[in-house]
Amino acid sequence: MKVNGKAYRTVWLEGSTVYLIEQNLLPFEFRVQEAKTYQETCRAIKSMTVRGAGALGAAAGFAMAQAFLAKADPAQAKKEIEATRPTAQNLFYAVNRVFNSKEPASEAQRIADEDADSCRRIGEFGSSLIRDGMKIETHCNAGWLAFVDHGSALAPIYAAHRGGKHLFVYVDETRPRGQGARLTAWELKNEEVPHAIIADNAGAYLMSQGKVDLMIVGADRIAGNGDTANKIGTLEKAIAAQEYGIPFYVAAPSSTIDRTCPDGRAIPIEERSADEVLYQTGLTAGGSLEKVLVCSPGSPALNPAFDVTPAKYITGIITEKGIIDPRTTQI
Amino acid sequence: MKVNGKAYRTVWLEGSTVYLIEQNLLPFEFRVQEAKTYQETCRAIKSMTVRGAGALGAAAGFAMAQAFLAKADPAQAKKEIEATRPTAQNLFYAVNRVFNSKEPASEAQRIADEDADSCRRIGEFGSSLIRDGMKIETHCNAGWLAFVDHGSALAPIYAAHRGGKHLFVYVDETRPRGQGARLTAWELKNEEVPHAIIADNAGAYLMSQGKVDLMIVGADRIAGNGDTANKIGTLEKAIAAQEYGIPFYVAAPSSTIDRTCPDGRAIPIEERSADEVLYQTGLTAGGSLEKVLVCSPGSPALNPAFDVTPAKYITGIITEKGIIDPRTTQI
Repeated sequence: MKVNGKAYRTVWLEGSTVYLIEQNLLPFEFRVQEAKTYQETCRAIKSMTVRGAGALGAAAGFAMAQAFLAKADPAQAKKEIEATRPTAQNLFYAVNRVFNSKEPASEAQRIADEDADSCRRIGEFGSSLIRDGMKIETHCNAGWLAFVDHGSALAPIYAAHRGGKHLFVYVDETRPRGQGARLTAWELKNEEVPHAIIADNAGAYLMSQGKVDLMIVGADRIAGNGDTANKIGTLEKAIAAQEYGIPFYVAAPSSTIDRTCPDGRAIPIEERSADEVLYQTGLTAGGSLEKVLVCSPGSPALNPAFDVTPAKYITGIITEKGIIDPRTTQI
Repeated sequence: MKVNGKAYRTVWLEGSTVYLIEQNLLPFEFRVQEAKTYQETCRAIKSMTVRGAGALGAAAGFAMAQAFLAKADPAQAKKEIEATRPTAQNLFYAVNRVFNSKEPASEAQRIADEDADSCRRIGEFGSSLIRDGMKIETHCNAGWLAFVDHGSALAPIYAAHRGGKHLFVYVDETRPRGQGARLTAWELKNEEVPHAIIADNAGAYLMSQGKVDLMIVGADRIAGNGDTANKIGTLEKAIAAQEYGIPFYVAAPSSTIDRTCPDGRAIPIEERSADEVLYQTGLTAGGSLEKVLVCSPGSPALNPAFDVTPAKYITGIITEKGIIDPRTTQI
C-alpha cells in the first residue's frame, strides 16, 4: 500500500537483507529498518517493529531464510526466531515451512506473497458489500500494517476506493492504545481515503443518526462457533450495530478461525498494564514524543485488552475464500 | 465533600468574597480561588473555574450578591453576570432570584444550600438501589464538582459508601475530555471509594462478564418523554446495559427535566473542536502540563459532545423528589 505516494509492504527481503517498516515510530515518523542478519530480524520482531499475525509470519519466514543464506546453524536459528514471540501461531507455521523447504528464500517469499494475496482476496470479497456513498465504521487497526499488504478489515475499503466508489470511514480511536487514531488514520490518509477519527464513545451516536451504513472489524481469534475475539470495544460496537440494524462484518484470513476452540468462553482475555489507560504518548508542539499522565494521580485502572463478540451479532465473516455465515465457520 | 480529608463545597461566600475550587487545574493541582468582586467571580465563571449547572447557578447567585454588597449598579452587574455563560439556564434563574430579593446575600446562600440539599436527597433516594457488594459503572463526571456538593450520579454512591455499604466503581474515562478519568476518579479517591478507571471501550466487556451490577449517569437535559441528553458515550452504555439486563439509572435534579422539549430529537447536539480528540493534555514525568498530539498528524476528527439516550433504555430517573419512571416525567 502507499506511503507518501510510494508502494510498500510491511516487511520484505532483498538479497539477504530484511526491510521492515518501523511501526514503533508510526504515525509520527516513517522509517524503514534494515536487518542484515537473522539475529537483527529477531530483534526487530521482539521490539514490535513489526506486529500482526500476517506480518509476523512473513518476518519470521524471512529470518529463517536469512539463517540459511548466511549458512548459520538452522536448528539454532529456528529456536531463536521461535523464542521472539512465543504466542504467535503464524510465526511457528512460517518458520517450519521455511526450515523444511529446499529453497528457503523462495519459500519465505511465497509465505509473504500468500499473506498479501489472501488479504487482497478479502478486499475483493468484502468490497462487494460496499455501495457507492457508504459510510463505514472500523475499530482498531486491521489494516495493511498488521499484515504484509492490504490488511483485513481495511482491505474491502481499499478495494472499493480503488474501484472508484465514494466512501467515508469513521475511525474509532480505539483507546487505550489508540491503534485506530494512530495506525488506521495514518493508513487511510496515505491511501487518500476520506475519513475522520472519532472518540470510541461516538459510535452508537453516529449509528443512531443514520450516519453509519456498515461496520467492519478485524479478528484476533475466531472460535468454531463464530464467536470472535478482537480489540476491546468491538463487542460494544457490535451490540450497538445490532440495535440500529447496521451490518457488522468481521474480516480475517480463514487461518484466524480456530476450530479447536469451541466458543468464546474458551478464549482467555489478556489483562494488560494499567499504564496504557493512565498515560498517553504523543507529539509535543516542539516535535518530541512525550508520555503524559492523563488521569487523576493515584487512581488505579483496569485494562482488559480484548473482548469476545458472540456470533449472533456478526452478520458475516469476510475471508480469502468468501464471505461466510459466522454460525457455520466451515469453509 | 472531602479533599485531602477536609470538607469543601465547589463554591461558597465568606463576607463579600467568593471562593471557588479552580477546576481547570484538577486533577493535577488542588487550589481554591478567591474572587473579591462580582467582576472577578464573572471571570472565574467565564474561564470555567466552575462548571456544571448547579455550581454555575450558585456562583452566579453569589456574584449578584457581591454586586449588592459592593453597592455596584445591580442592573449593570446582572447583565455582566448573565453574559458569562449565556446558555446556562441555572445561572439566569439564580441571578434573577438574588436580583429580586430583599436580602441578596441570604438569598444567594439559600440557592447554594438548595442545590446541595437537592443532591443530598438524590443520594438518599439513589442509595436505596445500592446493595452491599455492588459494582457500579458511571460515565463522565456527575459528581459534586458539577454541583455545590454531593453531585447527582455519584451522590447515591457517596451516600451508600458513608452508610457502610461495600461497593466498587468502574469509572469510564470518558473520552475525549476525560472527565471520568480526571474528575470522577479524583472525587472518588478523595472520598476513599474503591474504584478503577477503565477505557470507555471496556464497558460492554465488563457487563458481559457479570462484573457490573448497576449503572448510574448524570444528565444535561431530560426531555418530557424521558429521553436524556448526556455526555457522548452514554447511549452506547445504555444499549449495552439493556443487552445484559443491567439496571441503568439517570440521576439529576428535577430541574433538569425540560417539559418544553417533547423528546430527544428536539435536543440539539453540540459539535465541539476536533482538537479535543486529536490532543491530550497531561502531566509529564517532570511535573509540568503538556499538550500532545495522540493521533496521526493531518487526519481530521469529529467530536459530537453529547448523545441522547432514549427513555426505553432508562430504568429510572433519580431526582431529589424520588425515583421516577422515565416514561412519566411528571413528579
